Amino acid sequence: MSRFWSEVTKSLEPYVPGEQPQLANIIKLNTNENPYGPSPKVIQAISEQTTADLRKYPEPDSDALKQAVAGYWRIAPKQVFVGNGSDEVLAHVFMAFFKGEAPILFPDVTYSFYPVYCGLYQIPFEQIPLTDQFRIDVATYQRKNGGIIFANPNAPTGVALKRTDIEELLRQNTDSVVVIDEAYVDFGAESCVPLINSYPNLLVVQTVSKSRCLAGLRVGFACGSEELIEGLERVKNSFNSYPVDRLASAGAIAAFEDTKYFEETTEQIIYNRKMLTDGLKKLGFTVLPSKANFVFTSHPKGAERIKDELREQSIVVRHFQGARTSDFLRITVGAYREMKTLLAALEQIVK
Amino acid sequence: MSRFWSEVTKSLEPYVPGEQPQLANIIKLNTNENPYGPSPKVIQAISEQTTADLRKYPEPDSDALKQAVAGYWRIAPKQVFVGNGSDEVLAHVFMAFFKGEAPILFPDVTYSFYPVYCGLYQIPFEQIPLTDQFRIDVATYQRKNGGIIFANPNAPTGVALKRTDIEELLRQNTDSVVVIDEAYVDFGAESCVPLINSYPNLLVVQTVSKSRCLAGLRVGFACGSEELIEGLERVKNSFNSYPVDRLASAGAIAAFEDTKYFEETTEQIIYNRKMLTDGLKKLGFTVLPSKANFVFTSHPKGAERIKDELREQSIVVRHFQGARTSDFLRITVGAYREMKTLLAALEQIVK
Repeated sequence: MSRFWSEVTKSLEPYVPGEQPQLANIIKLNTNENPYGPSPKVIQAISEQTTADLRKYPEPDSDALKQAVAGYWRIAPKQVFVGNGSDEVLAHVFMAFFKGEAPILFPDVTYSFYPVYCGLYQIPFEQIPLTDQFRIDVATYQRKNGGIIFANPNAPTGVALKRTDIEELLRQNTDSVVVIDEAYVDFGAESCVPLINSYPNLLVVQTVSKSRCLAGLRVGFACGSEELIEGLERVKNSFNSYPVDRLASAGAIAAFEDTKYFEETTEQIIYNRKMLTDGLKKLGFTVLPSKANFVFTSHPKGAERIKDELREQSIVVRHFQGARTSDFLRITVGAYREMKTLLAALEQIVK
Repeated sequence: MSRFWSEVTKSLEPYVPGEQPQLANIIKLNTNENPYGPSPKVIQAISEQTTADLRKYPEPDSDALKQAVAGYWRIAPKQVFVGNGSDEVLAHVFMAFFKGEAPILFPDVTYSFYPVYCGLYQIPFEQIPLTDQFRIDVATYQRKNGGIIFANPNAPTGVALKRTDIEELLRQNTDSVVVIDEAYVDFGAESCVPLINSYPNLLVVQTVSKSRCLAGLRVGFACGSEELIEGLERVKNSFNSYPVDRLASAGAIAAFEDTKYFEETTEQIIYNRKMLTDGLKKLGFTVLPSKANFVFTSHPKGAERIKDELREQSIVVRHFQGARTSDFLRITVGAYREMKTLLAALEQIVK
């Protein structure tokens, strides 16, 4: 603590991301990165922009990138907001729509950055318990609120709601903004982007970090009604005029254009996830049904102990403290060979 | 306005950056970009990082980049904070140190983003008039305050304070944070980074956008005492874990390492600035003494009219509304040939 910090800075409890160990020969299954590199067309697009033009600012409104996202989703560019990773987009969402007196609602188990944003902007919140099966029950969100946010598929559980369930929630809740954080949606869940024309209070947040294999570039986006996007632009333009740099923009555009590569790699992850899930179950693990590029799994031997023993073999997975999560490990779905190696290691550990 | 916007979002008056016209053969002198491209070593460093590793997150703490900045300034990496452009760094500064009840102080003529941040975070402020010669008089900042910020050289005037004047201010003002925004310092002014070990409340903000020729990459940084940097890290880690992407980090590190290129291009800008200043004076312009990569200049013919006539010749300069600035144009110091073309055009316009 320093006497020069503002009161809010003193009160913050910052988010702690999964570690990025700088070790060789590691099998890194702790931050849900895609095991496949980005499309060769992404590499080419970035290379073409690595020129003397880097002396110039990027487009402040990222129009070309918005057009690429809008083209993919068949919506209007004015229904798209972009930012420096979906974490930045989410931060602006909390300021633009949630900052008020009424508490916002999110699950007791979900992306652990949400309460951190509430701390930063001093937004009251209520955590709604997941069901015993770690599912979101939309009926439990029928109460007065300043906004609703959850991840779908949820994190770190991987469990997804159907779009019809979310539409039920949207029919009930018309006076505050509902944010669906779809960081992991492309691995088998149903996106709510097709609903944005019907519900002016729906905002869908996505990222190129997972299914587009570009965590290293920092590009996230949101799709919603023009009035929601305009609110986000006001906040963004009061914070940083140029959040998406020239190379990140070029890479993300190319990633959206190469749908074939996107579909092939995504299908491969889904295939690997099934192999991993089946293998874990054979070893006595409980595995929640996942629509994400990770699984949330528990074993009688104890999650923390298994995590430590895997680490000794240079396999890194993530463990979350907390009453409802500490029995589980969150394991990223990696490449097929990585999953084989992981299962062989786990077989030795739990036998 | 939308009923879904928070009250603060409704109240915002966002910053408006200089336009980025997408025209060919333009002479763009409106956003203080460097006319020279980045060092060839920067291009090479980025190319080497344009690989499948883009699938992985960057270092969350940007340690390698902090080391490069710290090495250049001969300070400790823990005295360096980095962000997605100096605008983002400044935003975090306002939250970390200025958010409170006491009004912060800045000049009536300075970077026009400062009041915008105050709007975003609802921070009261007082604007202290520059002298008649558009100078900051540090004696006028001797009053109770929640913080002090100004640009040195100041924007859009280009006028610089000496380091000894700023040290005088720091001796007077020990209870709040003093932020010196040195976006333009490398073009001939004295940096305050060497003072950070003596004044724990001094924070110096810089960028790679101007003297390092990398506006397109979005990297800014701050140097200060460890306690100030820790405060900024707390805010950053409550907002976005990974603000600096892999390619931006690689490019910025290479830019700091190639001091020879940096010194040569900076000297050339200073040379071009002298030629521009002399040429403008010969044409009857008043030119404030500039230590930046732009000049602030007025002419009896009228600033807005000259701006419009230049635009007809595809030369873009910036004009600011406002009682004390509307008589002036801010003209970026470009390449030697661009300055020649500009002066020839102005000769025709004012004759």
